[in-house]
Amino acid sequence: MLKRYLPILTWLPHYHKRLLGADLLAGLIVTVMVIPQSLAYALLAGLPAVVGLYASILPQLVYTLFGTSKTLAVGPVAIIALMTGAALSSVAPTGSDTYLQAALILSLLSGGMLVVMGLLKMGFFSNFLSHPVISGFLTASGILIAASQLGSLLGVESSGFTLVERLITLVPNLPTFNLPTILIGSGTLLFLIAMRRQGKVTLHKAGLPLPLADLIAKAGPVFAVVATTLITWHWQLAEAGVAVVGSIPSGLPALSFPWGDYSLWRALLIPALLISLVGFVESVSMGQMLAAKRRQRISPNQELIGLGATNLAAGFSSGMPVTGGLSRTVINYDAGAQTPAAGAFAALGIALVTMSFTGWLYYLPIATLAATITVSILTLVDIPMLRQTWRYSRSDFAAMAVTIVLTLCEGVEAGIISGVTLSIALFLYRTSRPHSALVGRVPGTEHFRNTTRHDVETVNNVALLRIDESLYFANARYLEDTVYNLVASHPELEHVVLICSAVNLIDASALESLDAINARLKDSDVKLHLSEVKGPVMDQLKKSDFLEALTGRVFLSTYAAWREFS
Amino acid sequence: MLKRYLPILTWLPHYHKRLLGADLLAGLIVTVMVIPQSLAYALLAGLPAVVGLYASILPQLVYTLFGTSKTLAVGPVAIIALMTGAALSSVAPTGSDTYLQAALILSLLSGGMLVVMGLLKMGFFSNFLSHPVISGFLTASGILIAASQLGSLLGVESSGFTLVERLITLVPNLPTFNLPTILIGSGTLLFLIAMRRQGKVTLHKAGLPLPLADLIAKAGPVFAVVATTLITWHWQLAEAGVAVVGSIPSGLPALSFPWGDYSLWRALLIPALLISLVGFVESVSMGQMLAAKRRQRISPNQELIGLGATNLAAGFSSGMPVTGGLSRTVINYDAGAQTPAAGAFAALGIALVTMSFTGWLYYLPIATLAATITVSILTLVDIPMLRQTWRYSRSDFAAMAVTIVLTLCEGVEAGIISGVTLSIALFLYRTSRPHSALVGRVPGTEHFRNTTRHDVETVNNVALLRIDESLYFANARYLEDTVYNLVASHPELEHVVLICSAVNLIDASALESLDAINARLKDSDVKLHLSEVKGPVMDQLKKSDFLEALTGRVFLSTYAAWREFS
Repeated sequence: MLKRYLPILTWLPHYHKRLLGADLLAGLIVTVMVIPQSLAYALLAGLPAVVGLYASILPQLVYTLFGTSKTLAVGPVAIIALMTGAALSSVAPTGSDTYLQAALILSLLSGGMLVVMGLLKMGFFSNFLSHPVISGFLTASGILIAASQLGSLLGVESSGFTLVERLITLVPNLPTFNLPTILIGSGTLLFLIAMRRQGKVTLHKAGLPLPLADLIAKAGPVFAVVATTLITWHWQLAEAGVAVVGSIPSGLPALSFPWGDYSLWRALLIPALLISLVGFVESVSMGQMLAAKRRQRISPNQELIGLGATNLAAGFSSGMPVTGGLSRTVINYDAGAQTPAAGAFAALGIALVTMSFTGWLYYLPIATLAATITVSILTLVDIPMLRQTWRYSRSDFAAMAVTIVLTLCEGVEAGIISGVTLSIALFLYRTSRPHSALVGRVPGTEHFRNTTRHDVETVNNVALLRIDESLYFANARYLEDTVYNLVASHPELEHVVLICSAVNLIDASALESLDAINARLKDSDVKLHLSEVKGPVMDQLKKSDFLEALTGRVFLSTYAAWREFS
Repeated sequence: MLKRYLPILTWLPHYHKRLLGADLLAGLIVTVMVIPQSLAYALLAGLPAVVGLYASILPQLVYTLFGTSKTLAVGPVAIIALMTGAALSSVAPTGSDTYLQAALILSLLSGGMLVVMGLLKMGFFSNFLSHPVISGFLTASGILIAASQLGSLLGVESSGFTLVERLITLVPNLPTFNLPTILIGSGTLLFLIAMRRQGKVTLHKAGLPLPLADLIAKAGPVFAVVATTLITWHWQLAEAGVAVVGSIPSGLPALSFPWGDYSLWRALLIPALLISLVGFVESVSMGQMLAAKRRQRISPNQELIGLGATNLAAGFSSGMPVTGGLSRTVINYDAGAQTPAAGAFAALGIALVTMSFTGWLYYLPIATLAATITVSILTLVDIPMLRQTWRYSRSDFAAMAVTIVLTLCEGVEAGIISGVTLSIALFLYRTSRPHSALVGRVPGTEHFRNTTRHDVETVNNVALLRIDESLYFANARYLEDTVYNLVASHPELEHVVLICSAVNLIDASALESLDAINARLKDSDVKLHLSEVKGPVMDQLKKSDFLEALTGRVFLSTYAAWREFS
């Protein structure tokens, strides 16, 4: 029981020296790598850069206690930072004390929701974020985030959380561009793209062993940070108008509880729910993928609890909403992390930096961070997926397109809510007009197929009607219409057999319709039969009076009905 | 084309004298019978009594042009009046000019929505009001309406649109009861109940022919109205505190357009939508029932247009939202109406009364009208349905119970919205955890059933897994878990056959999951096969790369797969 809720108890007792070496190395690499992105994501959310560091310390330590993934690294991530910024800016002016306080409340709310969902085993809730909606959301968010970094790359002001707002605020300021900033920004951008595309191969060709070449290529952002910081310091570019991170308070974050107004908590409820769901989906799908590679398993419901505890920790320690991050997790995994201890070592590393070395980050240009975000975020934009989905299913494509367009034009919340709502509405619409088919016997077999698609045998006075959907309120009337039209257009009919092989549910509304159909066919001297009724459906029908009133029989198989009538 | 949108063209050219006699008689009877209820329902909505008369004139004439039911009688009805009152009282104080104006706006909005839904053939929209939700809503509304009449029956003040509000405002005023009012109210109530229960039989036993006995029993409210009006006039009970209808302006309603504020229109949008849907469902289900009795047909989409035009007419002619009313339609039907002309005659009759005889209604006691409403509305309360639904399905019962409780405690809008939302959520929840079964062959047949329910043959290294649900985003991950658990617990497996007889849809999310399952089983040297894939699903799968990647085959029937492996 205790082990279920505290997965650390399953691995810590077996911890040994060999694991320690691997985990320490991974922890060191992660520390160095994630500092720039932690700063960048805090800025993306409109928060002071140091919040990104705070959110990488205690939350990661807490995840070590509660998480089931061996390699997941938690902290600020791009999408969640974007959503956080959108949520906070709707309740408080950027930079105000309330804004900071709201970030903590958002973390606590989101953490609390995740823990509750985990305890109630409500992980299935995230299933309603369909694949096209998630993929559309990631693509649109990628574009939004890239647009949000444009200003920092050019050294001009822009604000807002939709594409239109961003561009409208950006364009008038374009003439105020800052040349040194553009040089640093575009230089870093080109360097990072080159390292990502060619770095590993080029370094390997230059004689480095493959794992080292890979590591150095991945460390591109670290080199860029060091180089541009030195350049900015040496030529005093901050005085030439290059925006820099500036002074970061040193020391560990204070533990506190963000009281705040009731109305503030209330206004953040929906954003917190969306952040929880998106964060959970992002984290769990990555965790599952990596676990599968090493034939390990993660427990989605315990992950909810783990991520929840992590966000609670962020809320109590001056952080911001966090989740399992794609890039930091991949770095951790590739660096050879064996257990969650690697994450704990990285957290301690970042704590050390926060205590003693924040001065070194003073001259780090914001443009460098913007370039780092832009390069890593563009991997989210998945254009081929759009074409693929269009080809496969128009209604999935519709959900995806609506998510993308509304995320770009109305913001992240509107995008994701409309996408989910539309997916559900389209599913309901499809099931409300079920496919049905008159079937006949495939000659010489006991198998029955659609009369219009296959060459099959039929009997004149018997209609074998297969309904390809569960019968429920949305299609109950449609079922009536289908049967009445069938009987009206085939006056020779004496038997109608409803084949229920695809009927997984008959709810009270559909039962009412079946009763009505049975009564109406009786008036026309047509008998109603059922076949292939599934066990659970049959159990339920027995609780009503329908089977007694049924004019015909219930056949175990369609073939049995066929033998009876032919 | 013209005939489709103006159904009057289908019957008016064939109109002849024999029909005229029947329709004139029905029109006369309906005129007399519906005047009291029209007044009563206007009062129920918080509107002046005369509005009920106005809403029975032009709207009924317009329905004659556009309606497809031969016998439907339109006008104010109890449920719609209740919903109207609730909507209006949330935007304006009862009795104010804005309140009257809002009633017209509500009619126009609701009429416009119905026409648009009709033109777009969106009649299916009403299917989402499931049977348990409608039935729960009618029961709760019946109780609410009865409670709302309690004050009038006792001669004390009460107000509000939830049960709690009604009772809270009623109880403190109880000591101010008015004895003559109570006598008139309870006397009428007992008389009406007696007439309804025993009238027809008693009068028939007393020697009257059955049809006449029936008509007289049905005319109970008319006798009550005449008798209590005379009593009140003769003993001048209005001066003793009996509330009476009072002076009603005579003359036909003025035609006008209720301009009003934009905010007023906007605030009434949702109520108008709900009133449209509920009115449409009530009207169409009754129309269909009566049409079926005479082997006629109505067209739901044209009915939307007809009811829409009717409500537009109500909005332009100082009326209130209307729909096909249960009691007035039954009266019309029983009185022998043959064509919609009967309705037109009734409308002309009521117009005549409105022009010349409203003075006769001066002394009509409100308590009599309250008793009329109470008796007719209590037929909506269907307690046995509660038990029946509980027995058949707990989730249908949950939707019903939520609708009842919220309608009573939070009002009609909250009730119906929560009921619909919960029905949809429960359906989605059920489909998100589909039933699945390992099946085996029923010996000697080509038929396959659940291994745990039937005595069937199986093959050791083959799993025949039947998934009893369409595969879509909500259950895609559940499908993965099911298959992975199956493979993990049966290490001897070499083939997994997914039987798709109940799979009516595979959306993009589920396709992604199938791809993942296929890849993961490949790693474990297990082949994935499909069987009994339906035509439309197969067509769609062919648009993706899944079939090329599939490690196994697609079998036409499960038996074909069985033969292959055993």
